[in-house]
Amino acid sequence: MKSYIAEKIDAFKNVNKNRARLLINCADQPGIVSAVSKFLHEHDANIIESNQYTTDPHGGEFFMRIEFEVEELKANVEKLEADFEEVKRSFSMEATFKYVDEVKKMAIFVSKEPHCLLELLWEWQSGDLMADISLVISNHETSRAFVEPLGIPYYYIPANKDIRNQVEEEQIRLLQEHEIDVIVLARYMQILTPNFVETFKNKIINIHHSFLPAFIGAKPYERAYHRGVKLIGATSHYVTNDLDEGPIIEQDISRVDHRDNAAAMKKIGQSVERSVLARAIKWHLDDRIIVYGNKTIVF
Amino acid sequence: MKSYIAEKIDAFKNVNKNRARLLINCADQPGIVSAVSKFLHEHDANIIESNQYTTDPHGGEFFMRIEFEVEELKANVEKLEADFEEVKRSFSMEATFKYVDEVKKMAIFVSKEPHCLLELLWEWQSGDLMADISLVISNHETSRAFVEPLGIPYYYIPANKDIRNQVEEEQIRLLQEHEIDVIVLARYMQILTPNFVETFKNKIINIHHSFLPAFIGAKPYERAYHRGVKLIGATSHYVTNDLDEGPIIEQDISRVDHRDNAAAMKKIGQSVERSVLARAIKWHLDDRIIVYGNKTIVF
Amino acid sequence: MKSYIAEKIDAFKNVNKNRARLLINCADQPGIVSAVSKFLHEHDANIIESNQYTTDPHGGEFFMRIEFEVEELKANVEKLEADFEEVKRSFSMEATFKYVDEVKKMAIFVSKEPHCLLELLWEWQSGDLMADISLVISNHETSRAFVEPLGIPYYYIPANKDIRNQVEEEQIRLLQEHEIDVIVLARYMQILTPNFVETFKNKIINIHHSFLPAFIGAKPYERAYHRGVKLIGATSHYVTNDLDEGPIIEQDISRVDHRDNAAAMKKIGQSVERSVLARAIKWHLDDRIIVYGNKTIVF
Amino acid sequence: MKSYIAEKIDAFKNVNKNRARLLINCADQPGIVSAVSKFLHEHDANIIESNQYTTDPHGGEFFMRIEFEVEELKANVEKLEADFEEVKRSFSMEATFKYVDEVKKMAIFVSKEPHCLLELLWEWQSGDLMADISLVISNHETSRAFVEPLGIPYYYIPANKDIRNQVEEEQIRLLQEHEIDVIVLARYMQILTPNFVETFKNKIINIHHSFLPAFIGAKPYERAYHRGVKLIGATSHYVTNDLDEGPIIEQDISRVDHRDNAAAMKKIGQSVERSVLARAIKWHLDDRIIVYGNKTIVF
Repeated sequence: MKSYIAEKIDAFKNVNKNRARLLINCADQPGIVSAVSKFLHEHDANIIESNQYTTDPHGGEFFMRIEFEVEELKANVEKLEADFEEVKRSFSMEATFKYVDEVKKMAIFVSKEPHCLLELLWEWQSGDLMADISLVISNHETSRAFVEPLGIPYYYIPANKDIRNQVEEEQIRLLQEHEIDVIVLARYMQILTPNFVETFKNKIINIHHSFLPAFIGAKPYERAYHRGVKLIGATSHYVTNDLDEGPIIEQDISRVDHRDNAAAMKKIGQSVERSVLARAIKWHLDDRIIVYGNKTIVF
Repeated sequence: MKSYIAEKIDAFKNVNKNRARLLINCADQPGIVSAVSKFLHEHDANIIESNQYTTDPHGGEFFMRIEFEVEELKANVEKLEADFEEVKRSFSMEATFKYVDEVKKMAIFVSKEPHCLLELLWEWQSGDLMADISLVISNHETSRAFVEPLGIPYYYIPANKDIRNQVEEEQIRLLQEHEIDVIVLARYMQILTPNFVETFKNKIINIHHSFLPAFIGAKPYERAYHRGVKLIGATSHYVTNDLDEGPIIEQDISRVDHRDNAAAMKKIGQSVERSVLARAIKWHLDDRIIVYGNKTIVF
Repeated sequence: MKSYIAEKIDAFKNVNKNRARLLINCADQPGIVSAVSKFLHEHDANIIESNQYTTDPHGGEFFMRIEFEVEELKANVEKLEADFEEVKRSFSMEATFKYVDEVKKMAIFVSKEPHCLLELLWEWQSGDLMADISLVISNHETSRAFVEPLGIPYYYIPANKDIRNQVEEEQIRLLQEHEIDVIVLARYMQILTPNFVETFKNKIINIHHSFLPAFIGAKPYERAYHRGVKLIGATSHYVTNDLDEGPIIEQDISRVDHRDNAAAMKKIGQSVERSVLARAIKWHLDDRIIVYGNKTIVF
Repeated sequence: MKSYIAEKIDAFKNVNKNRARLLINCADQPGIVSAVSKFLHEHDANIIESNQYTTDPHGGEFFMRIEFEVEELKANVEKLEADFEEVKRSFSMEATFKYVDEVKKMAIFVSKEPHCLLELLWEWQSGDLMADISLVISNHETSRAFVEPLGIPYYYIPANKDIRNQVEEEQIRLLQEHEIDVIVLARYMQILTPNFVETFKNKIINIHHSFLPAFIGAKPYERAYHRGVKLIGATSHYVTNDLDEGPIIEQDISRVDHRDNAAAMKKIGQSVERSVLARAIKWHLDDRIIVYGNKTIVF
């Protein structure tokens, strides 16, 4: 199986070897687009897709994402980045170049319920989730059987709040060893310490099983059932130190009615959770998300 | 215009003169459906639609709604209701007969924003909201121009928290004078007293401009914007004395993104509000809703 | 993996050992519901869910599905079915009893694209698709690696129109050997002969990658792209001898826009296909579907 | 009522007096964005929103829409347009400047069913449809009572296929007299001649009551009912001489089930029709649509 995926990843890398993305934000001011597009034009870049947004056309913050191709990109990367320094400086920009063939290394954390993990493995096997899933970490053995046949190492690390620090130490060691770029909490039911969150800032994506800010915290489906809501939802967000308060990436809902008890809502909700999480991760992998304050711009 | 609607209402009454609905709830127990359907069969009722629901098949609460036709219904109503007393008694039922040609008398309350009122007037003109809109009450003059040309009386009753009691006294007098069956708060931004709510229990339908229980209270769109949500919603519910906590009838959402500021969210949300409110009211008018505890069963 | 599923199936069978479903259709006439509910009451059945529908309340066709429980069902099955013969006869009914613990045996046919197959395997592993997936048949080797690790036999049977009859002979032999109840065409790109279709009437479920009746036949995504549609869809239906004309079970759509070329539409569509097919199959497994003429009633 | 709307339109014009839109298409080639953004920068334009799209990054067609503000726009319009001629020439562009305060003059055509007309009037009264509705033309008297109280002239022009030419002559005279920019067929059930269509090319927007290309032509709801579809739809498109084959602007659907007969589908569909048509018209009024071949780009 691994080799099947490996082949897909190789093909993807090859197709995209000349493709890059430029992500920008700075204070809105005259001439940004003009300067950036002039720069790209002068460097023979072929623009594939371009998106921009200003929080307020009169004195707001400016954001831009440009996907482009340059012949022999690899040979020109250093000059490209060096030349752009001048543009950056003149607009006091934050700017990052991302290279599409640098496929991101992903770690998945999961507890007992495997539906979100399974969805990600599914999308990955289908070639729709272009990441190198380097390892799965779980505080349960439940999902080992889904993971190992795909050639992905599965680390069982029991966890509870009394041993949180030593558990995280081991996790961080593994994540750094594998040079992980993005951590997905695919229904991982342990709280992370501020130290862990800080170590992987804007790199941890969680799925919460409610339409935030409704039903923050535990047992959202039970609470949704008791409130008698007619829709249930799921929310994917970057993890910060405020529980379920991080920047929201994606949300979706499904209709329920009086016949659905808490267990039925949970089943229906799992289907929403998995599609919401998968969309959020794909956008992250495609460098489509810019975090700004406690919000996301998703281009 | 009034005569155009009046004609539609008359046609509706005539078509439905032999049609009734029976709404039942009681403790679940063997033989209910058998007894009720035997009763209807023996009274020559033709069942048009039938729905039932049990909160728990092992010892829950049972709910049923049957729509049926009986030849010469008007001549047989008294006997029908009298004969059903025995069934009611033997199962300790709550049961109500509703007659479809008894078109409900509706009052609409509105403050400044007319979009929900306009939707209801629209649906009414289209013949899709089968009610007798007897009056509109507002604490602003804004909507008079939409209402009076349709032949509906418009009562301007200025309101604020200091004069709440005398305002409600006048409102209740008007509502009782017009024998109002259902009160719609179509974005009426005044809080009602417990006395008012008690007087019209399960007869007041509100639209709240958020996906409850998220953003209870004031300025939900502003708060949704600041939280960075990706969906906004609206909720229609029966009014109880706990603000925005009454039994939910219907909810829906619309997608927003980073480009939508609070004003844009409000515009998008208004479209959700009006369709959610219109659906909730139609179900109420069709006697499809049973309130049970703080929830609704919508058949 | 097989044992993990086997455990889930066993648990399901045990929980549902006393549960049955009664599916009825006949000409609408007075007294049906009364007779059926009297019958169930007299046989100590506890009704879990009941749905009925009449094509026309004045002289149409009547349909009913009742899910119920009877203590010691297994010991009472024969008497139950025998006693019901009288009810059947007096209303000239078609009626079938289904027993929930008789988990259906399923065969999945697939060609090159594995996304629908993978979805079904996913749902199955999650315990959400309560079937015994007895075998997978394919005219390609592509999906073997997904199937065999789960303990499901994979039969590679090359096919083309010249050898259709002998291919189907082998397929039918395998299907009968495994006593298959339902055949899922999970993007199987071969046409079936009238003989095959007749052999498994109303037991073959297909997924077509368009919103039927739009784009009947080959290459729907390409044609949707060229027409410039703003929504693409998928349709699951029972297979008849008219290509893509069988009774529709479920449809759904996804939004596309001018940026989506045919390849992008295909990717987006695959996600719709898999959820539409999965829903259709679940309803079939739950005995929720009655085929009437060229339509389905889905209770 | 007219004055209420007039006030809203005046306020809108005033707020937008310095706002323009530039719509571009040409063969994709290096340097377009750079040249256009340099031009705007040099003319002190503040970019409010910018969208671009290439049918194929390797040799396709390029499209762009930029909304911007320029101080004292009115005094600078001539110079702006004249200066842009050079950019246009060097890229062989089609380019159009649109000025937001030039509110479009709209004519609405309607036959018997008023629901789409009513929706547009509703949106207009709410200030959400920024157009000058100059007249309504109908081959029936039905909708006069909705239109005239709003201060909009209503022209009753009986029509049938035998008098088509003279009917259209009168219509065209009225449309030209009122200098109409956009014609909305809000369920106008007469076929237009090639001459009429040519006279108002890409200016006539129709609503078709099906999910095109399914159910082209007459009685789509009846045919949808007989096919047993589970979703019904509506399509808004520019009118060309091929019936229901013009460039699609927007589509949407609503779920139906076996309980919905053709009449019920029609009711449900009307709600889809009105929202689809309203969205399409708003995009047209906002100059968001570029027609390319038989497709639309909607920015």
